[in-house]
Amino acid sequence: MLNILITNDDGINSAGLITLAQAISKIANVTVVAPDRERSATAHAITMHKPLRVEKSDIPGCKALGYKVNGTPSDCVKLALEALLDSEPDMVLSGINRGANLGTDVIYSGTVSAAIEGALSGVPAIALSVAARGNVEFDYAAEFAKRLCQQISKKNFPKDTLLNVNIPFTKQEKIAGIAVTHLGTIRYKNSFERRTDPRGKVYYWLAGEAIEDINDKGSDVWAVKNNFISITPILLDLTKYDIIDTIREWNLEL
Amino acid sequence: MLNILITNDDGINSAGLITLAQAISKIANVTVVAPDRERSATAHAITMHKPLRVEKSDIPGCKALGYKVNGTPSDCVKLALEALLDSEPDMVLSGINRGANLGTDVIYSGTVSAAIEGALSGVPAIALSVAARGNVEFDYAAEFAKRLCQQISKKNFPKDTLLNVNIPFTKQEKIAGIAVTHLGTIRYKNSFERRTDPRGKVYYWLAGEAIEDINDKGSDVWAVKNNFISITPILLDLTKYDIIDTIREWNLEL
Repeated sequence: MLNILITNDDGINSAGLITLAQAISKIANVTVVAPDRERSATAHAITMHKPLRVEKSDIPGCKALGYKVNGTPSDCVKLALEALLDSEPDMVLSGINRGANLGTDVIYSGTVSAAIEGALSGVPAIALSVAARGNVEFDYAAEFAKRLCQQISKKNFPKDTLLNVNIPFTKQEKIAGIAVTHLGTIRYKNSFERRTDPRGKVYYWLAGEAIEDINDKGSDVWAVKNNFISITPILLDLTKYDIIDTIREWNLEL
Repeated sequence: MLNILITNDDGINSAGLITLAQAISKIANVTVVAPDRERSATAHAITMHKPLRVEKSDIPGCKALGYKVNGTPSDCVKLALEALLDSEPDMVLSGINRGANLGTDVIYSGTVSAAIEGALSGVPAIALSVAARGNVEFDYAAEFAKRLCQQISKKNFPKDTLLNVNIPFTKQEKIAGIAVTHLGTIRYKNSFERRTDPRGKVYYWLAGEAIEDINDKGSDVWAVKNNFISITPILLDLTKYDIIDTIREWNLEL
């Protein structure tokens, strides 16, 4: 049986994580190590200046072993791999996130960062998100994740890579298929609202209307808009190799 | 005259930022928008659920305009570009960080993330770090940064890229030169210490001894160990393009 570690950034009590743990428990020994509360947009933050506390926490409706941590998604995976688990898991799953993680937004995503942490340790890692806000239902996404794990566990998972999976929020019969994609573009306009507090002092609040480039065919943004499940391979080495020679030719001086 | 935005993750009162602002002020109109306190290892975290406050803050020893923000480095750059600055700056500088940002560690770095935020908005961006802990002296690094900005402002800065610069902490005459590098490898062993608190409860604290692969010639880790100033181009598009076809050939099913 597979050994699978599950984490997320919405917190251990979120429906997306619980539904995923229930589905995956049918095919694997599942350990959940997840933040004790919502940690969205913490990106790859790690906790260096505070102790981390770990508490056992039951996952309703399944026999998965659960631990909640007062840290970020990255903390959870680091701690699981290096202190809590007896042996290295066969796979790390992060999610299922409530809301898409697409395009340039992946850089802010705690869901994706947790998967990166798994991949950095050499464990096949998958980030899972459902492209919807509000009252999301995770049953289809969790069942798909289960079938995906079964299929992927038989493949040669690429090194220094993780898979970022986004599932459209639509009826099962409307799912158009699976698209292997590249990251698309999401830009924001009017990102900050300038407001005045009850004492007359100015503050700013991040708002921002997303402008998605849905015309970039083959991108994750395009795929989800067209009801495909999007799978994007994400790299760990952030070097932009094709620019190295250009910069060398600049002949910069000390 | 150039218009340059400076930020960091060590906070607006850190010596690395102040020394940099003083040096850059000699060649540019400088605006500093930086966290009001240390924000190391916040990575690319952004503040969505709280208001951000901005306060004017003098930068000692120079006429740079300063603002401190109760947010992360990424918040600072976003806020500067979208709300505080009258026009887009010619360059974003993040640093000078106390401590190297090398190899796989860049993913955790608030210094690098602030530069990424600039690059995402299309502004040439440079992350600057001095490879030392403790009692660091930033004068040489700041003067080098000044000369680097002057040289780079005359080049065609590559799109969707930022430069990650690490300066060895050594005497000026020992600097071996400039190396344009790729990101090397840093792994950690024994990352968590398991301890017991005064009330007998277990906690974990991130420790970890870094294992740097200094034999990877041409990497940033190698360069700094050999007293080169390392310049690494970092990409914004995290897609691992060379794996897309492999995953397509897996023929995954719904």
